[in-house]
Amino acid sequence: MTKTSMTLVTLHPEKSALQPPSAGFEPGGFADHSTPLVMNCWYVAALSHEISRDIISRRLLGSDVALYRTLAGQAIAVRNRCPHRSFPLAKGRLDGDTLICGYHGMQFDPSGRCTLMPSMPITPGHAAVRSFVLVEKAPLVWIWMGDADLANEALIPDTHWLGSPLWKSVSGAFHMRSDYVAMHENLLDQTHFPFLHPGSIGTPEFARSSLQVRQEGEVIIIDRELKDSVPPGVYAMPTGLTGQAVHRYSQARFASPALHTAFAKIVNPKPQPGQQAEFLFNITHVFTPETNGSIHYWWFNSRNFKLDDGAVDDFLSAASAKAYLEDVDALEWISEVVRHDVQPQFDLNFAPDKPGLLMRRVLYARAAAEAGVQL
Amino acid sequence: MTKTSMTLVTLHPEKSALQPPSAGFEPGGFADHSTPLVMNCWYVAALSHEISRDIISRRLLGSDVALYRTLAGQAIAVRNRCPHRSFPLAKGRLDGDTLICGYHGMQFDPSGRCTLMPSMPITPGHAAVRSFVLVEKAPLVWIWMGDADLANEALIPDTHWLGSPLWKSVSGAFHMRSDYVAMHENLLDQTHFPFLHPGSIGTPEFARSSLQVRQEGEVIIIDRELKDSVPPGVYAMPTGLTGQAVHRYSQARFASPALHTAFAKIVNPKPQPGQQAEFLFNITHVFTPETNGSIHYWWFNSRNFKLDDGAVDDFLSAASAKAYLEDVDALEWISEVVRHDVQPQFDLNFAPDKPGLLMRRVLYARAAAEAGVQL
Amino acid sequence: MTKTSMTLVTLHPEKSALQPPSAGFEPGGFADHSTPLVMNCWYVAALSHEISRDIISRRLLGSDVALYRTLAGQAIAVRNRCPHRSFPLAKGRLDGDTLICGYHGMQFDPSGRCTLMPSMPITPGHAAVRSFVLVEKAPLVWIWMGDADLANEALIPDTHWLGSPLWKSVSGAFHMRSDYVAMHENLLDQTHFPFLHPGSIGTPEFARSSLQVRQEGEVIIIDRELKDSVPPGVYAMPTGLTGQAVHRYSQARFASPALHTAFAKIVNPKPQPGQQAEFLFNITHVFTPETNGSIHYWWFNSRNFKLDDGAVDDFLSAASAKAYLEDVDALEWISEVVRHDVQPQFDLNFAPDKPGLLMRRVLYARAAAEAGVQL
Repeated sequence: MTKTSMTLVTLHPEKSALQPPSAGFEPGGFADHSTPLVMNCWYVAALSHEISRDIISRRLLGSDVALYRTLAGQAIAVRNRCPHRSFPLAKGRLDGDTLICGYHGMQFDPSGRCTLMPSMPITPGHAAVRSFVLVEKAPLVWIWMGDADLANEALIPDTHWLGSPLWKSVSGAFHMRSDYVAMHENLLDQTHFPFLHPGSIGTPEFARSSLQVRQEGEVIIIDRELKDSVPPGVYAMPTGLTGQAVHRYSQARFASPALHTAFAKIVNPKPQPGQQAEFLFNITHVFTPETNGSIHYWWFNSRNFKLDDGAVDDFLSAASAKAYLEDVDALEWISEVVRHDVQPQFDLNFAPDKPGLLMRRVLYARAAAEAGVQL
Repeated sequence: MTKTSMTLVTLHPEKSALQPPSAGFEPGGFADHSTPLVMNCWYVAALSHEISRDIISRRLLGSDVALYRTLAGQAIAVRNRCPHRSFPLAKGRLDGDTLICGYHGMQFDPSGRCTLMPSMPITPGHAAVRSFVLVEKAPLVWIWMGDADLANEALIPDTHWLGSPLWKSVSGAFHMRSDYVAMHENLLDQTHFPFLHPGSIGTPEFARSSLQVRQEGEVIIIDRELKDSVPPGVYAMPTGLTGQAVHRYSQARFASPALHTAFAKIVNPKPQPGQQAEFLFNITHVFTPETNGSIHYWWFNSRNFKLDDGAVDDFLSAASAKAYLEDVDALEWISEVVRHDVQPQFDLNFAPDKPGLLMRRVLYARAAAEAGVQL
Repeated sequence: MTKTSMTLVTLHPEKSALQPPSAGFEPGGFADHSTPLVMNCWYVAALSHEISRDIISRRLLGSDVALYRTLAGQAIAVRNRCPHRSFPLAKGRLDGDTLICGYHGMQFDPSGRCTLMPSMPITPGHAAVRSFVLVEKAPLVWIWMGDADLANEALIPDTHWLGSPLWKSVSGAFHMRSDYVAMHENLLDQTHFPFLHPGSIGTPEFARSSLQVRQEGEVIIIDRELKDSVPPGVYAMPTGLTGQAVHRYSQARFASPALHTAFAKIVNPKPQPGQQAEFLFNITHVFTPETNGSIHYWWFNSRNFKLDDGAVDDFLSAASAKAYLEDVDALEWISEVVRHDVQPQFDLNFAPDKPGLLMRRVLYARAAAEAGVQL
């Protein structure tokens, strides 16, 4: 049995681990629910199928966004607020690719430029509604709501398996009252598995297996391997390796403020002739803050085998939904406590919290930089 | 086709029209939802039929008011808060003309003076609940909640047609989540008719007709005339002039922070012998802020012809209710956007916004003056 | 008829009775709903029967507390917030006397000390959840949430009759939106009886009877006696003295911020041979602030006679519940007015308000002292 070191985490030696994060951005701080949201980042605005010729609105990073598709099928996002009298544009209508405000009929092309103000003899060319860059990588539609000059498509994290014919995904969504900091910390922390998810993903052997934590730029990676161990149901049923000792290689990645990905490889060390030996699972957790206290959360459980097996779909769908609902419930309970308790608490940190604290330091530094604070 | 000038409105040349109204009362500012409510003004507390021997309470300008009638039928308004222990007096009872608090039995005459405190051997003569001056001009009961020394009955704006046997009115009411600034601006802006009210009051010819805007003291007036044009249904059906070219003279008035009136005269230029040639419609919009973000809104559609025609009543009642509900919905949506968006927006102004901006300047100046700020 | 003096109360001569309590703790101030809650005081956390092997949580003085019993039956209270990641411990589970967090399995003994952190090789001995001292005097379980060094069991006010076989109690509970200051003031003020409770406890004779107010330390006591008077139903029915003139001795006590007790002795001056002459009623009002604007309120109506008479139980239960609901309704209405009115009001005080004002001065001084303010 390998356990991590026994000491309290002291990522920042000159400050106690009991030190609370400061609202005013101090060196060595960790993001929490009160930290300003990271704006210069690609987030998922919606799933591809949610955006159509019927305009919808969604609150993202605190602002309402109107979403629709052009006749040619391109997804478009503009601020859901007419620049004239603040009417929500999603309550207007489309005429071809033109979005028409429902109040005074002001018209906008997909770039947000005003193309007609009916009550004016000539079009006020300076008038525009802010449009947001969207990049569709189906089934995800990514949006950049920060400084438009920094929107670099190359920064969109990889989720190619979600759109690949070589993979099959089951998925679900939650609208939850918590914050992305807490949700990311939850996913980087595997010591909660046996307690919050008993009987499903939380086997004692896995919790005890050795792990390696590393940071690559702003990505936090946890690698873990567990050899010759009987897999839990969530891996056993789909692979058909119930009761058989397998090797299990897993990686959890804080890929960006918007994305956590988890990869698992199950290896059958003694396959029968003609039997498949390696099975891949990719788990994708997408978080888009609605506000500082609520999240749009989408999850995907993808596999590269038995693509057409409906029984495996059903099994993984139910097992995933159950486990992620346990997370959602827990994080909503915590959020409720944290927001209503009149007595402040500075949470204790232990060694296994290191990946989460590294992540919270990344979020904190990015938020500070966006606020113009040099830490 | 006459269109207004193409330039942005620059009522205040040294400030951009993009300038937001200042919370701290700056020269050239325009009222918006965050501007303190104008207090020194007659507002409608209730309709006559709402006030009876059963005490009711209503929140007006942020304060609860208790309303009842004396035995002789006079409408009375006092603060809905006992001066002793803040019990809501509307939960008490009437004994003749005496209002008795339900907590300790403290008694008040219609002027608000305490006439008995049962637990005291003599009446505390200095004790009183604030009473508000009411002036009933049925069906409206006007209240003055500002500086009592300034309550001048002559300032109550004219709505005599509502109580005149020469007129017939249909009416309705809304309790809405918006602000009186936005509602007044909506009514002073007729360029929204074809978009928010398509097919009813919003004909393209009317929207394009020439208009004149003038300010008389603190009253803003828009005059419009449209000759030889087929009237929309809302005028055609009651007059029986469907499909006939008529002349249409209309006036919209921001009469006070509490009242917008709109007058329309439909003239049949070629009446048959014995046929009526002129038809008058008076539309009355009454706004009483409940808080900075909610309004008691009453409307009346009055005419001086076919007083006993139930079919016209039904038609005007339904058409009015539909159109004003479209306004209410739109303004509530806007209010929701404005109050929840984390990104501020300084609305663009165009030439047709001039009447609304004049009105917002009046409200702003009055609020500033009441706050003791010299602009 | 004895009435109290006619003057306004001027407990603090250099300040007008119209003076509002100051938020900043000024000499001569009186507590109101905005005054910080007194923390260094025993409050009732729960009734004995509410605490079991199923962990419950309750918000007390603004903080969530988890409550459970050990195997041996001892009631335990700890902060309902794991010191590691703020998970509500009441959502965890018990293993023997060990409370196990539902998130990472952190374990706590009844003192709050961490006895195991599963993901750590050795137990972090410094880690603990705050525990609160509980003292059970069934049916009440008292909690001390202030400075633990000041928790002195001798300060728990006497309610021995609630657990005595010589007494029989009926009881009820309310969760109400008001504040303990207003509820205590209500109970120290008997002049509201005829108006808020007409026909039950509010007889005119009692309201007019002579009273004596005295303060003993921080306890406020009102003594009253009324001789040769027909008792109201609430005393007549249980004693069987309906329509008979009796002597009535009553005492109301502001015993602590958590407790108001009222004692009544009904004496039959001319008992038949063998007939009981004295009857005691003890009324217990328990208030535990949930927040500054909400209260857990428990009441008990106890008697020392006819202990096994179910008809008396039913009668007293119904009569008490009705009267206390009248108080609850009134105080909630007042709270609603006070909290939403945009116009401040400085309540008038009259001579009969003296006991309540003495009490409010005690609460004010205690809150000020806890805030480190020397008045």
